[in-house]
Amino acid sequence: MRDEEKYTNTEEQLLYLQKLLDEEDTDALNELFQELDILAIARTLESFPAKTRDLLWDYIPDDVLGEVLAEVDEDIRADYIEDLSASDVEQIVRGLDAQEVAEVLDVADEEIKTTVYASLDQEIRAQVENLHAYEDDVVGRYMDPETVNVKQGVSLEAVQRYIRIHHLLDDESQQIMITDKDKRLLGTLSLIDLIKQPQEAVVDDYMDDFFTLNDQMKVSDAAALLRSKELHFVPVCDSDGLLVGQLNAADVLEITQDDADMTLKHMSGVSDEEEVFTPIARSAKSRGIWLGINLLTAFLAAFVIGQFEAVLDQIVALAILMPVVASMGGIAGSQTLTVVIRGLALGQLAGNNKRWLYNKELWVGMSNGLVWALVVGGISYLWFSDLLITLVITLAIFINMSLANLSGVLIPLVLKRLQIDPALSGAVILTTVTDVVGFLSFLGLATLIIL
Amino acid sequence: MRDEEKYTNTEEQLLYLQKLLDEEDTDALNELFQELDILAIARTLESFPAKTRDLLWDYIPDDVLGEVLAEVDEDIRADYIEDLSASDVEQIVRGLDAQEVAEVLDVADEEIKTTVYASLDQEIRAQVENLHAYEDDVVGRYMDPETVNVKQGVSLEAVQRYIRIHHLLDDESQQIMITDKDKRLLGTLSLIDLIKQPQEAVVDDYMDDFFTLNDQMKVSDAAALLRSKELHFVPVCDSDGLLVGQLNAADVLEITQDDADMTLKHMSGVSDEEEVFTPIARSAKSRGIWLGINLLTAFLAAFVIGQFEAVLDQIVALAILMPVVASMGGIAGSQTLTVVIRGLALGQLAGNNKRWLYNKELWVGMSNGLVWALVVGGISYLWFSDLLITLVITLAIFINMSLANLSGVLIPLVLKRLQIDPALSGAVILTTVTDVVGFLSFLGLATLIIL
Repeated sequence: MRDEEKYTNTEEQLLYLQKLLDEEDTDALNELFQELDILAIARTLESFPAKTRDLLWDYIPDDVLGEVLAEVDEDIRADYIEDLSASDVEQIVRGLDAQEVAEVLDVADEEIKTTVYASLDQEIRAQVENLHAYEDDVVGRYMDPETVNVKQGVSLEAVQRYIRIHHLLDDESQQIMITDKDKRLLGTLSLIDLIKQPQEAVVDDYMDDFFTLNDQMKVSDAAALLRSKELHFVPVCDSDGLLVGQLNAADVLEITQDDADMTLKHMSGVSDEEEVFTPIARSAKSRGIWLGINLLTAFLAAFVIGQFEAVLDQIVALAILMPVVASMGGIAGSQTLTVVIRGLALGQLAGNNKRWLYNKELWVGMSNGLVWALVVGGISYLWFSDLLITLVITLAIFINMSLANLSGVLIPLVLKRLQIDPALSGAVILTTVTDVVGFLSFLGLATLIIL
Repeated sequence: MRDEEKYTNTEEQLLYLQKLLDEEDTDALNELFQELDILAIARTLESFPAKTRDLLWDYIPDDVLGEVLAEVDEDIRADYIEDLSASDVEQIVRGLDAQEVAEVLDVADEEIKTTVYASLDQEIRAQVENLHAYEDDVVGRYMDPETVNVKQGVSLEAVQRYIRIHHLLDDESQQIMITDKDKRLLGTLSLIDLIKQPQEAVVDDYMDDFFTLNDQMKVSDAAALLRSKELHFVPVCDSDGLLVGQLNAADVLEITQDDADMTLKHMSGVSDEEEVFTPIARSAKSRGIWLGINLLTAFLAAFVIGQFEAVLDQIVALAILMPVVASMGGIAGSQTLTVVIRGLALGQLAGNNKRWLYNKELWVGMSNGLVWALVVGGISYLWFSDLLITLVITLAIFINMSLANLSGVLIPLVLKRLQIDPALSGAVILTTVTDVVGFLSFLGLATLIIL
């Protein structure tokens, strides 16, 4: 049995690896990398900054280097391939399957690509060229072109014999394709049925209902579909309905990031690609853009405050309490926004449901708004002993929190309709709304009531 | 081939369903639910508020009701089971496997549980009781107790025959367990090898390295492991090393929410369980708690501002620009926080890497801080034509953004060490820091320089 520790990317493991690196214990490092599987090596490389990572490459056994490269993040793969000669790359892709070769060559420059192409075994080359002929955001680009195909009317026993004679079924095959003479897909047969059903029966008797993807479908849509159907493998057909390969869910989920992860990053103003070990310059630049957008919001809020110089000049308590109003609205709004964006991602929002949701959020906003408005009012009264200020802040909190919840529903739904990613711009628009409404209602009411 | 539309939870599908409900077209509704598979029905139920959902239950065909119940969110399952009699539940669990029965009975009250237990087939009952004997957060509770076990030295041909004679291998089986006479696991055999390898060979020749889980392991840890290793099925052993079942990744990923999804909710102050269709009262309560915590932060910031009444009273421009400082720090900090929390979740942060990360974030913070401090300073000068105010806000933005980035690293790392979920409290602590540092540096510098 394998030792569990060696196969997980734990803090202890990273510390151990760092210790070996510090001690330059090359024997132990070589041994460690011999024992790690491909996934573990890839995850380890992703857990170090570029400088350390460059040291680690040398310890990866040559026979798995290609598979590791096909597995790591694209950025890291590109950084590594950049420094290699064409003959290095030829060496690396030897023995890889078409999908893996395509991944590696994707990040190589044209010259290397051409040279390596020429060195490939003819069948693999044809498959790689075929994969590369697809745009890099469609299903065809990421499918496994090799499937096990059998004709109708064949017995299960014959299928099994055919597989053994031709050494078919690689690690990723999970279904047998039943096709007609034109390679039109008629059905699929699961490996489970192939084993458990009477061997003299014909494949037709155990054909499953099946679901196919078009090779030109956007890979992100395909990922969402596979996730919602919990499918691991799906046949891929071209627009003529002919079988061209199968899509392995693991390959797609790897390239299309987890939806919640993307939402999280977008809502916090972090780009899709940013990881802990993204280099400083790249991080600073991608985050800087978002900071610039936020600055517009912040100055818009400042402009609104600026309209109320008169009242602020008279009553300094308003300046002190002002951020409380904006902050409570901001939190209430972002709670709603998060729930609605997740609901949209899960495809739960349509028609009547939207009306139900407006209604819900209005009630949640008003009830929490009422409770916290009274609390804030109470604290403000204890602090400043001023009934008018208390009245103004109580009303402003209630208004801002109620509107914040409605905006939390309205903004993502409108953005979705405009085909803008609600996670990406929803948070900044919402903050603008809660800041502006917060300052406007608080200082506006103060001007009306107190001044 | 099945019609794609019917199997995805699209907006069109929800609208169509709502139309049928509005028209009370029971025939069409019955027909629609006949065609949907179990997953699709479960996801559909999750896409409606409780009131509409209650109408939908009636259209679910009796023969899939049990499986649908085992599949939907626990809240929804509990709501439905609540209103049923023991004999209704008996009916529902008939034909379900032990795992599904355990899920359904989990939400039933003790009385119904006892009655239904008594009605179960003896083998299933023993399995269900065994599952229920585990705590509800450990692997043993969610495993499939039925595995296909064979002895060493048996030929592949014999294994295949054994499976066919005894009708073994259900839809979820993906590996054959090779055990000794005490049920100690010796290895696993993949279905692929069972088919493709020479049938006269013995199972010993194709035993895979395997990885097992202990039945008492926390299910959330198991989910993280299965995800990082991309495993779909793992044998489960008890503390004596004896095989007790297998864990299906799909079952675990269903109950332990996606990590990024949880992080997103925690960072926005939304509870784990909240979905779009969570009832109003429950949403209001769980969000209210978070709003209360935020209020402490907001008043702390107000208190800091309050310390500078003197300078605010003299220069109203400070009150106008004040939120800009806090806002830029808040965004910069939450960008860092998001990246660091994801890095922690992926197990990428240990030892030297942390030092590298502090260094990176300090540089990112200072470089973006410098750029945006100058921009804000410039705009402020254009607005107020006051060199001292310009100087104060430029310095304050630079200080707040640099410290925000360092706090974005420090806060989650410290919280992790204290075994507190960094996503849950990280955001609120960070906001406190960026607000307090922002107001303190801005108004403090103003007092020093201008007053």
